[in-house]
Amino acid sequence: MRRSGDPVRFEGIEPGTTTHCGSTTVTENEIVEFAERYDPLAIHTDPAAAAESRFGGLIASGYHTLCLSVRLLVEGVRNERAVVGGLGIDDVRWHRPVEPGDAITVRTEILDTRPSESDPNTGIVHEAITVTNQREETVLSYENYELLARRE
Amino acid sequence: MRRSGDPVRFEGIEPGTTTHCGSTTVTENEIVEFAERYDPLAIHTDPAAAAESRFGGLIASGYHTLCLSVRLLVEGVRNERAVVGGLGIDDVRWHRPVEPGDAITVRTEILDTRPSESDPNTGIVHEAITVTNQREETVLSYENYELLARRE
Repeated sequence: MRRSGDPVRFEGIEPGTTTHCGSTTVTENEIVEFAERYDPLAIHTDPAAAAESRFGGLIASGYHTLCLSVRLLVEGVRNERAVVGGLGIDDVRWHRPVEPGDAITVRTEILDTRPSESDPNTGIVHEAITVTNQREETVLSYENYELLARRE
Repeated sequence: MRRSGDPVRFEGIEPGTTTHCGSTTVTENEIVEFAERYDPLAIHTDPAAAAESRFGGLIASGYHTLCLSVRLLVEGVRNERAVVGGLGIDDVRWHRPVEPGDAITVRTEILDTRPSESDPNTGIVHEAITVTNQREETVLSYENYELLARRE
């Protein structure tokens, strides 16, 4: 049994489980601030230049959307888990742009789990993560590999 | 010929080309600031808790390292290209932790290019990106798919 406050260990993760995490609204200020620091292309930082692009206006850096999904995942599931670290992500695809005012939400489904071969104290959790906007259109999807501590 | 100031279009990208982008030093303040906003796990935000972890101290969020590599790529190559947008990234692997004071640098190699099937005005550039620390250890690697405008 998991006592309240104990982190969820590897053995407590059930393949097939889907969790809906929270939602966050993306503002123009935040789009520009993130992009000026990490992805300073004009379509993310310059409203006038972005208006001339195929998107017709500013769009969030795909890395910004990715990072916002991470925050929602930490708040929604990872904070409760005995996370040792992230191993990697696969098949990251930005399906549609995220525009100022869009509200994005995150769903994660456990695909499979397996004990680590190199470290008997840990196990690997493999998840499919889907980020949707307020019209329920998928804007980003990816798979995540995360290392969790096992029970002692 | 590319005139100075003209962006590099799809046809100007040569498979096999390797570019070394700049370097950036990661500070503890920046690690904590990024993580509090986007990846608020204790190993990234709380020096005391991180000291008890297997890493023995604070480590940068893998998403922070990823975003810093994007900035170096924008400054090193993407700002000169006719980038339409990013399609996705594959095989993102965090090989080693990045610690406060580490200096990371980015190398990108063009793997292949192909015209877009759905949009004759664009082409897809596929790159292998490697991020190393000051000891020339690989800390992060991934592949990038980017849409560039073609010549008119």
